[in-house]
Amino acid sequence: MTGEVMLGEIREQPLALLRLLEHERELATIAAALARRAPTVVRLVGHGTSDNAASYGIYALGLLPGWTALRDSISLTVYYDASIDFSGSAVLALSQSGQTPDVVEYVRRARAGGALTVALTNEPESELGRAAELVVPLSAGPELAVAATKTYLNELAALALLAGGAVGRGAEVADGLRHVASLLTESLPELETAVAPVAAACAFVGRMFVIGRGLEYATAREIALKLTDTCRVAAEPLTATDLVHGPVAALDPFFPVWAIASPDESLPAVVEAAARARAAGAAIVASGSAAAEIAGAAYFLPVPDAGDRLLAPLLSVVPGQLFAARLARVKGLDADSPERLTKVTLAR
Amino acid sequence: MTGEVMLGEIREQPLALLRLLEHERELATIAAALARRAPTVVRLVGHGTSDNAASYGIYALGLLPGWTALRDSISLTVYYDASIDFSGSAVLALSQSGQTPDVVEYVRRARAGGALTVALTNEPESELGRAAELVVPLSAGPELAVAATKTYLNELAALALLAGGAVGRGAEVADGLRHVASLLTESLPELETAVAPVAAACAFVGRMFVIGRGLEYATAREIALKLTDTCRVAAEPLTATDLVHGPVAALDPFFPVWAIASPDESLPAVVEAAARARAAGAAIVASGSAAAEIAGAAYFLPVPDAGDRLLAPLLSVVPGQLFAARLARVKGLDADSPERLTKVTLAR
Repeated sequence: MTGEVMLGEIREQPLALLRLLEHERELATIAAALARRAPTVVRLVGHGTSDNAASYGIYALGLLPGWTALRDSISLTVYYDASIDFSGSAVLALSQSGQTPDVVEYVRRARAGGALTVALTNEPESELGRAAELVVPLSAGPELAVAATKTYLNELAALALLAGGAVGRGAEVADGLRHVASLLTESLPELETAVAPVAAACAFVGRMFVIGRGLEYATAREIALKLTDTCRVAAEPLTATDLVHGPVAALDPFFPVWAIASPDESLPAVVEAAARARAAGAAIVASGSAAAEIAGAAYFLPVPDAGDRLLAPLLSVVPGQLFAARLARVKGLDADSPERLTKVTLAR
Repeated sequence: MTGEVMLGEIREQPLALLRLLEHERELATIAAALARRAPTVVRLVGHGTSDNAASYGIYALGLLPGWTALRDSISLTVYYDASIDFSGSAVLALSQSGQTPDVVEYVRRARAGGALTVALTNEPESELGRAAELVVPLSAGPELAVAATKTYLNELAALALLAGGAVGRGAEVADGLRHVASLLTESLPELETAVAPVAAACAFVGRMFVIGRGLEYATAREIALKLTDTCRVAAEPLTATDLVHGPVAALDPFFPVWAIASPDESLPAVVEAAARARAAGAAIVASGSAAAEIAGAAYFLPVPDAGDRLLAPLLSVVPGQLFAARLARVKGLDADSPERLTKVTLAR
C-alpha cells in the first residue's frame, strides 16, 4: 500500500455520504429524542479525528437557540472520577471503531448518571454501540487506511443532521448534504490535480500552522492532524485569533500557513490573521470556498460553495485530505499505514 | 532588553502569588457568589495564556461535585451572534490587560443575558473590569515582558481559590498557595541552573510536542505557547492520549517531546505516551514532580511536590518558563519582545 487506499477512501466520500443519508429517518428519530430531552449541555467525546468532528459539533449544536455543546474532558470522568451531574445532559460519543476504551467507559458512566447517550460509530455492534442508549450508524463503510477521511465527513454530516433535526430542519440539511455530495463528486478530479504542485512545493516543509475560525476550526484541526499523521509535518491547528495572539512570532519563509476561508461571519478574522502571517514572510495556502479573499496567498485550493455555512466544512476539508495523501507520496511515505499507528487505538 | 525582563518576572512569581493572596477575602466573597448562583455551566473565556489558564479552570472547577466548566467559543457569541442561554451560567473572563476586545464583548453579552460575570484581570479599572459584575484583581503587578508568566500563575491561583472557596475549602487552598510560593522561592535558583544545559542541547530544535493530561494539560499548552512565542519553536501541546492517537507518527530523533508528569490519576497515561515517543526515537524532557517516572528521558527537570494535585500545575509550568527564557537567549532572540508581538493584542 502506498497511499492508494487513503486516496480511494477520499474519492469514495460522496458515496459514503449518500450511505449515511439512507439512515435519514433514524437520524431524525434520534434528533427528536435529543430535542425532547432539551439537554442543559450536550457533551461530545472522542479522540483524534473524532475529537476534531466534535469541534464541529460545538458549532453545529451551539448555533441552535439556547443550546450549549462542549467537548467534554474524558479524564475528569474516567481518571479523576469526578462527580459529574449528567442528569440534564446529552452525550454524543464519536468513534470510528466503537472500541476506544475511555470513550466506552465515559459513555457507561454518563448513561448510569442519567445522560441521554448517543454513539456515532461505523460499528453499531461495537462495545460503544452497545454501551449507548441510541446509535447513529455512520455507514462510512470499511475504512482501511489508518488516517480517517470518510468517517470524518460522515461524522460531520451526522452531527449536522442531528442539529438540524433537533429544530425541525432535518430534511433541509439532508437535501444540503445531497448537494454537497454532488458538488464533491464534480470537484474531486480537479482538486486532485490542484493539490499536486502545492505538495511538490512543500516536500521539505517540517512545520506548518493551519488556521480556521468558528465552524472551520474543526477543519483546521483535521487537516493538521492528517499532515502530522501521514506526512510527519509538525502541523499545529490554531484559531485565526490564537495565531495573532502569539504563534505568529514563530513564522518565517520556511514555515507556511494553511488558511481555511469560508464565506461566513468568521471570515474577517481569518483574512486578518493570514495577512499577519504573510507580513511575517510565511507562504500561505488558501483553501475554502472564500480562498480568493486571502490576499497574497502563494497557493489557492478553492472548493465549491456549499450554499449553507453549516455544511461548508464538509467541502473545506477535502483539499487538505488530498494534499496530505499527495505530500506523503512526494515524501516517499506510506499514507495508508504510517509508522507506529494502528487503525484502532486502544491506548488511553 | 534581552530576556532579563521575562526572567525577572518569572523570579517574581512567588511574590506575585502573595500579592494575590492579600485579596483572599475578596476572592472568598466572589467564590461564595459563584456557589450561590449554582451555575448550570461555568463558561471560561480568554485568549493565549489566559485561554491556557482556562484549560486549568475546566479541571479545577470540574472536580467540584456537580459542576461543569467549559472553555466557551467566543466566536459563537461574538461573530455568529448565536442565541446562547446565559441565564443559568457563570462566566469567568480572563485577560491580563482587560482590553481584549472580543472577550469584553462576550462578557457584555453574557451579562445582558443574565450570566453572573466575573473578570479576572490585572487591571480592575479596564474595560473588561467595568463590563463584568465582579472583578478578581489578579495583582500580578506590571508585566512588561510580552510573554506572560506571573499573570499565568496568578490566574491559576485565582481559579483554584474560586474553586476551593465555592466548596468551603478557600482557606485550605490559600494555605496551599502560600506553601507553593515558598517551594517556588526555594527551588527557583536550582531550576534556573538545571534548564541551562537542556536549552544548550535544544539550540537547533525546530519542533516539539508538549504533553500533559488532566490538570497538567494546561501546563502543556502554556509551555508550548512560551516556546512558540519566544523561541520560534513549533511546539504543539497535546494530551498524552492525543499523542498516541496519531501525532506519534511524526516523531524521530530530531523532534523532542516535553512530558509533564505529576503524581495524580492521569500519570499512567503520560508515562505510557512518553514511552511511545521514546520508542519512536524522540528525546524526552521530563518535568513535573513525578518526572522520575518517565523512563528513558534524556533530561529531567523535576519540581517540588505541591502536596495537592490541584496546585501542582503552578510549579510544573516554571521549568518551561525558565527553559523558554534560556533557549531564547541561546538562540540570540529577545524573549522580552518577540518580533511582531505586542503586550496587548487588540486583533480579533
